[in-house]
Amino acid sequence: MAVTIKDVAKLAKVAPSTVSRVIANNPRISQRTKERVREAMEQLGYYPNYNARSLVNQSTKTLGIIIPSSARIAFQNPFFPEVIRGITTKAYVEKYGLYLSTGQTEEELLAEVKEMVQSRRVDGILLLYAKQDDKVMPYLIEENFPFVLVGRPYDDQLKELVSFVNNDNVKAAKMVTEYILLLGHRKIGFIGGNLEYTVTIDHKEGYRRALANAGIPFREEYVVYYDEVEEGGQEAVIELMSLEEPPTALIVADDLMALGVLRMLDEMDVSVPEEMSIISFNNAMISELSSPPLTTVDIHIFDLGFQATECLIEKMKDPERPPAQIIIPHKLIKRQTCRRLLKS
Amino acid sequence: MAVTIKDVAKLAKVAPSTVSRVIANNPRISQRTKERVREAMEQLGYYPNYNARSLVNQSTKTLGIIIPSSARIAFQNPFFPEVIRGITTKAYVEKYGLYLSTGQTEEELLAEVKEMVQSRRVDGILLLYAKQDDKVMPYLIEENFPFVLVGRPYDDQLKELVSFVNNDNVKAAKMVTEYILLLGHRKIGFIGGNLEYTVTIDHKEGYRRALANAGIPFREEYVVYYDEVEEGGQEAVIELMSLEEPPTALIVADDLMALGVLRMLDEMDVSVPEEMSIISFNNAMISELSSPPLTTVDIHIFDLGFQATECLIEKMKDPERPPAQIIIPHKLIKRQTCRRLLKS
Repeated sequence: MAVTIKDVAKLAKVAPSTVSRVIANNPRISQRTKERVREAMEQLGYYPNYNARSLVNQSTKTLGIIIPSSARIAFQNPFFPEVIRGITTKAYVEKYGLYLSTGQTEEELLAEVKEMVQSRRVDGILLLYAKQDDKVMPYLIEENFPFVLVGRPYDDQLKELVSFVNNDNVKAAKMVTEYILLLGHRKIGFIGGNLEYTVTIDHKEGYRRALANAGIPFREEYVVYYDEVEEGGQEAVIELMSLEEPPTALIVADDLMALGVLRMLDEMDVSVPEEMSIISFNNAMISELSSPPLTTVDIHIFDLGFQATECLIEKMKDPERPPAQIIIPHKLIKRQTCRRLLKS
Repeated sequence: MAVTIKDVAKLAKVAPSTVSRVIANNPRISQRTKERVREAMEQLGYYPNYNARSLVNQSTKTLGIIIPSSARIAFQNPFFPEVIRGITTKAYVEKYGLYLSTGQTEEELLAEVKEMVQSRRVDGILLLYAKQDDKVMPYLIEENFPFVLVGRPYDDQLKELVSFVNNDNVKAAKMVTEYILLLGHRKIGFIGGNLEYTVTIDHKEGYRRALANAGIPFREEYVVYYDEVEEGGQEAVIELMSLEEPPTALIVADDLMALGVLRMLDEMDVSVPEEMSIISFNNAMISELSSPPLTTVDIHIFDLGFQATECLIEKMKDPERPPAQIIIPHKLIKRQTCRRLLKS
């Protein structure tokens, strides 16, 4: 038999309505009474109904997580699970629950977000992607609903309006390109992700700047974008290796794609790093386990999720708080896929 | 300004209390009135408060997902994201939301499940692991709360009481061992996961049976278990390769661990498959991208999640339904890490 408010009231020797007020944390109930009622609740194992409590408190103690609509790709990429791990860790400490989006097209996702917001299913939202023509973010801004973006807004004009947690991806890609240049490479290929995402645009910009600073012409044929993580890396390798002057080094959008690049080069009998240097981004666990282990950039994915959650909770506590822009540092992790080019 | 019940009532030309009854899907309201009210709601963009509606309907339209407490390891293994993708796909179609566990120790997880159940935060639970001395499952059984397990109960006595969706892991491991035996191998190492999990016990049993059927003695020194996915595979290789008679083939618990095994063998200059055959389980995307691509067993992870969700929703609709045991088929995926041993 489930324990009821009446049982609690009886044990605590108060009226049932007093128990309800304690659950709602009504300031008009004295601290002493609150403690007595809470003790009785604990003793009897009484849990207030979640929905009743949420209704009274006007709060769900739940955060929504919006993952990109292309869930198949997203979930295979270790980036998303690791961001969610960061979110989970912070949410647990702050006693927030997590509500996961399930929509698999952009339209489904937008409908889902509207439902979350309008029906107050969640108190705030973590948006795990930033892309062109996205309708979710403008909707959240319009509704003035608390949310934090992991990434940066595609549209620069929104930068001032939105709280976001991101890496400096331009700087990271510039650093990576400079590192490859310092190793003596001049023919450097760039295998980017989907150009609709801000991270791809930023990576390309960093690559472009480093080449310009070094006085090396930007060659359009050295730049390929791939949407599909899996096949992408492999097709990109075929494209680049078929050029009259194939690159001697490749900058790859992320570790999973780099795994596909390594596999394709292995198939073509191109040895890494002897004949081709590879550098990627993310430092997911697979980057340590590949053969050879990948030189990559640690973007501290866990921290992106953790700090976005912290930022969102602060924002929910104080809606007047101005938007915060948090940049998580990155770090070059040298392993075994890059090599100095011998002077010829 | 938010749209209220009064606005809807006015447009639909009914009393506000009628609108409330339509939201609660009260059978005493005529179909015609319901349609008129729902049209008005849609026209005005009115969303009933989620918590109020849940309270009235005694249903949250939300499923809880309980992932193992060792979240760091769990989330790096592509198994969990892919199960969740299966769950997400089915949940979306059935208009269920997903609530994710955040606890990171066994105690935290149990407390969280109790809170979910007692406060009716979710309508049913998907339990994504089966292990020894687990307290979550006995609690759910005791509370008679709808749940479905992905895996099988550790305790055979619970098999009749619990709905679960699983692979036949004994059969899969037996098949894998028989395949390796047919290729002429006799010295076959087994690198299992944590022995507290039922999947590890079942893999070992299948391996043992295949050897027994072939009249090959079971050698304790050929069997190693590793808890930590990452380092585990690598340490296991050192252990096995240091034996006086090292194995010529390795059966590895999952693809991620196999990636670590490949990397360690590469470091030791042991070539795969020429000097060592490798076979693993799961058929995650990384198994296609490794060099060489892994021979593995497709366990249809997506289907495990999808069917568990379907089973749970059926169970919630009909609480009297007897427990269902669903076995998802497996399939050998031959790639490039196994080779026939030449007769010496």
